[in-house]
Amino acid sequence: MTDDEKFLWKDLQLEEAHRLAHENAKDIIACGFDPKKTFIFSDLDYMSSCPNFYRNVLRIQKCVTVNQAKGIFGFVDTDCIGKIGFPAVQAAPAFSTSFPSIFAESKEIGCLIPCAIDQDPYFRMTRDVAPRLGFPKPALLHSVFFPALQGSQSKMSSSDPSSSIFLTDTPKQIKQKVLKYAFSGGRDTMEEHRRYGGNPDVDVSYQYLTFFLEDDNRLAQIEQDYRSGKMLTGELKKELVSVLQDLIGQHRERRKAITDDILREFMTPYHHDFYH
Amino acid sequence: MTDDEKFLWKDLQLEEAHRLAHENAKDIIACGFDPKKTFIFSDLDYMSSCPNFYRNVLRIQKCVTVNQAKGIFGFVDTDCIGKIGFPAVQAAPAFSTSFPSIFAESKEIGCLIPCAIDQDPYFRMTRDVAPRLGFPKPALLHSVFFPALQGSQSKMSSSDPSSSIFLTDTPKQIKQKVLKYAFSGGRDTMEEHRRYGGNPDVDVSYQYLTFFLEDDNRLAQIEQDYRSGKMLTGELKKELVSVLQDLIGQHRERRKAITDDILREFMTPYHHDFYH
Repeated sequence: MTDDEKFLWKDLQLEEAHRLAHENAKDIIACGFDPKKTFIFSDLDYMSSCPNFYRNVLRIQKCVTVNQAKGIFGFVDTDCIGKIGFPAVQAAPAFSTSFPSIFAESKEIGCLIPCAIDQDPYFRMTRDVAPRLGFPKPALLHSVFFPALQGSQSKMSSSDPSSSIFLTDTPKQIKQKVLKYAFSGGRDTMEEHRRYGGNPDVDVSYQYLTFFLEDDNRLAQIEQDYRSGKMLTGELKKELVSVLQDLIGQHRERRKAITDDILREFMTPYHHDFYH
Repeated sequence: MTDDEKFLWKDLQLEEAHRLAHENAKDIIACGFDPKKTFIFSDLDYMSSCPNFYRNVLRIQKCVTVNQAKGIFGFVDTDCIGKIGFPAVQAAPAFSTSFPSIFAESKEIGCLIPCAIDQDPYFRMTRDVAPRLGFPKPALLHSVFFPALQGSQSKMSSSDPSSSIFLTDTPKQIKQKVLKYAFSGGRDTMEEHRRYGGNPDVDVSYQYLTFFLEDDNRLAQIEQDYRSGKMLTGELKKELVSVLQDLIGQHRERRKAITDDILREFMTPYHHDFYH
């Protein structure tokens, strides 16, 4: 959890960034990870508990010039000096020696980074410096961007509740948000919609269903019905509301069960089965 | 000990920078510090043992722009990103919350920094950010620069053994270096010297004596005799050789007695009497 990054980029106190990281960790854990195979760490905590981490950060920082960082990340001279150095903190966990309690002294363990495309610059930089430090290049799995409720041209923002569905939203809030804000690929009138059909390619409710509806046959049917005009936007939205209410309801239950002890188990850098 | 700085600025491995810091710490301890009132730390070690340290580094990094760092330190875009962020690491120890094991949570403890004038930019920056973070500004004691053997226009360098006297030099090396390299304020010939006198203001041996000769009356006598021509450069150098051999000989003996246990006592952040 890059709580240091959040602090440097946002108008946020360190303590709050640190607290949020731990809240986020609970949401991740609630997705069903196995503590025996998972280590979740806060940069703030891990920097001050693992000597190898700061050392790898420095090694990376020595390999990257300000010019390069500007080229890769678009930094400007009015940015704070913390931002300029931060990419090395993001990069260091891609090298196995940053986790001596898990990988001991092994330098050759590969790293697979599943991330959204916007994180790619960090890891292009990481792949660039890796061989110069004697580490293997990390491999990447790019996920597509999840659109904001207002459509793929707008951006989700935690400060704008109408831009996305939160894991903390109630069933009622979920329904209201989808009905009110989810960008529709439908026609202006029901008559036109029945005649010309809707456009699932831009319809946010349909796009969300491609992520959250497990039944692929049902999804294909929905796409066909919506495109043909047989299914109306209201019906499509109802479908999404039901899927999201169910999904988030289950998540809420699992998250409730994540105690501070469980959180600590995931965030303590030892006794992991996945390598030894 | 800024072993991270050494690594970022020099062509040096981290392990070597870390080792040198510990060697330097032994030299400092040998000057006669009281372990009950002294905490010596390596940035590399302390960053990974004290959560507050990295937190204060980040707080400072958020307050300083790249523009400001360039203006203060002369950084350029071909410098590595580690250098740009480093001044915050240099600044953080000026704030008492960086040492919770010594000062607990107190934010108001003042800090006095004795340093050479070349370190001033770091602490001008520190004084600038201090009030914005709610900390008192550190106070500074500037020491004058100690001239290289070749005179105040040249620079001491650890890679040029003839530029200075090392604490590891033997009595013979001390003698050779002073006789051969110490810039002289004397005249070209003995005749001229006797007639016009020497110039102690540029004579490195005399300058060194102003630092190392404890007896002020004797120092005043030497200055007078050298300026009048009564004392020759060779005699002045002999005086310095004797003082340095004695001083460094004593230091060598004291340093020999600094065991790794004693070093650890100074470098462990607890049980300090000087505040509690």
